[in-house]
Amino acid sequence: MQKLTIIKIGGNVIDNSESLHRFLEDFTSLDGPKILIHGGGKIATETSASLGIEAKMVDGRRITDIETLRVVTMVYAGLINKNIVAQLQAKGANAIGLTGADGNIIKAKKRPIQKVFPVGGDLEGVEIDYGFVGDLDENSVSVPSLSNLLQAGFVPVLCAITHDGETQLLNTNADTIASAVAVAMSAQYETHLVYCFEKKGVLKDVNDDATVVREIRSADFEPLKADGTVAGGMIPKLHNAFEAINKGVTSVYIGKADELAEIATGTFGTKLSP
Amino acid sequence: MQKLTIIKIGGNVIDNSESLHRFLEDFTSLDGPKILIHGGGKIATETSASLGIEAKMVDGRRITDIETLRVVTMVYAGLINKNIVAQLQAKGANAIGLTGADGNIIKAKKRPIQKVFPVGGDLEGVEIDYGFVGDLDENSVSVPSLSNLLQAGFVPVLCAITHDGETQLLNTNADTIASAVAVAMSAQYETHLVYCFEKKGVLKDVNDDATVVREIRSADFEPLKADGTVAGGMIPKLHNAFEAINKGVTSVYIGKADELAEIATGTFGTKLSP
Repeated sequence: MQKLTIIKIGGNVIDNSESLHRFLEDFTSLDGPKILIHGGGKIATETSASLGIEAKMVDGRRITDIETLRVVTMVYAGLINKNIVAQLQAKGANAIGLTGADGNIIKAKKRPIQKVFPVGGDLEGVEIDYGFVGDLDENSVSVPSLSNLLQAGFVPVLCAITHDGETQLLNTNADTIASAVAVAMSAQYETHLVYCFEKKGVLKDVNDDATVVREIRSADFEPLKADGTVAGGMIPKLHNAFEAINKGVTSVYIGKADELAEIATGTFGTKLSP
Repeated sequence: MQKLTIIKIGGNVIDNSESLHRFLEDFTSLDGPKILIHGGGKIATETSASLGIEAKMVDGRRITDIETLRVVTMVYAGLINKNIVAQLQAKGANAIGLTGADGNIIKAKKRPIQKVFPVGGDLEGVEIDYGFVGDLDENSVSVPSLSNLLQAGFVPVLCAITHDGETQLLNTNADTIASAVAVAMSAQYETHLVYCFEKKGVLKDVNDDATVVREIRSADFEPLKADGTVAGGMIPKLHNAFEAINKGVTSVYIGKADELAEIATGTFGTKLSP
């Protein structure tokens, strides 16, 4: 099977033009077919503020009301996506910028109104309407559409907007999109999923960048949780990564965007494998 | 050669959700490969106003400064383009929404600073910097990129944003894009270009919609100008249309978006032919 690299970047790369430039250089240099998936960044928050739209939160959970959906559609699918595409084109990658609506690449389901608060707590029974948020399932990704684009030599650049197939655009977590795309594309490709985040990888000592754990196999995950090497926010990240591996992804890397070039030499971040 | 229909719509369709819905229904029903090209609309002006950005004009000419470029990129490539795509997908057309940067489909040149005012006038010698505006030439359109998408079954939806190939996005007139795409694609397809505007076509009596001139051949153009049937803003419109025909486009239609379905029966607007 042909190798396919799927890379997700977040706000920490997008918000810094120097980091973004360097990352896109390294991304362009990667061999073989590849897909870039990006989240938002400060620009969405700033644009909302300039338009006088307040971020709606319910108990720490962000709500995507119709005004917020308009802003993220403008900022993610317009401003950020098209500037990334223009930069990639200048560097020689035949980028094509897309939402999940384009080519019906990612069809999501609007998240139902939920009771999410613990029984016995102050908010027990309170329902949350997350608004225009889209959740994915195993049928969300159109493998033929993405394959057609890859085979025609395009480099898809996906932002975190999806649709429900019935005219409604939806806001979807970019990490979730990256994982769903990697799992679905595993049917036709040997897929490698790369999550870029703030740290150099899983660190034995969170305060020492030199202590990157180079590889974690599926069987190592529980012991590493038990001894505290994997803790806090890394637990769900790794849990999701191993779930993708269980569903057919060949390997998942977690590391820092500005070290992407090292993926070729096997010294990029932490590699998770079956 | 296979038939290809290229349709351009403007603000009068985009700004009215009922008109847009009806137009997209008819567009989806058109047989064969097709491309939709859309301009902006009131939303760009309104968003600029909400963000506190004033429209910059020099002697009636709109200037695209960097702030305006950000807004049109957000509104054209994000909000309008992706909502059209989501609607087309719901209606069964496999739409894919693009700027000229995507797949390097349209590479423009930033308009140089120009002296545009008449000799002897008050503004003689004054230079205008139009800002981030892109002009097209005969090499601007990537026929292979568009053909690849059409052959893969996609329906390209292009907005009026292009790029210079060196990371800069540019604002380009949507009529000009439609014409350039139709001319370039004539190398591989029998192209039919449709301009939707406010009127039902070229009217013998501008106040009577029942007086549509059904067909104008190239040789009729000068006599119709001479007798006043074609006057005012219709002159440059028809001039550009016949120029496209001279460069290989099979026919150009000018008519009202909500009558698009009539193109199948030969009663849509005014047909211009060689």
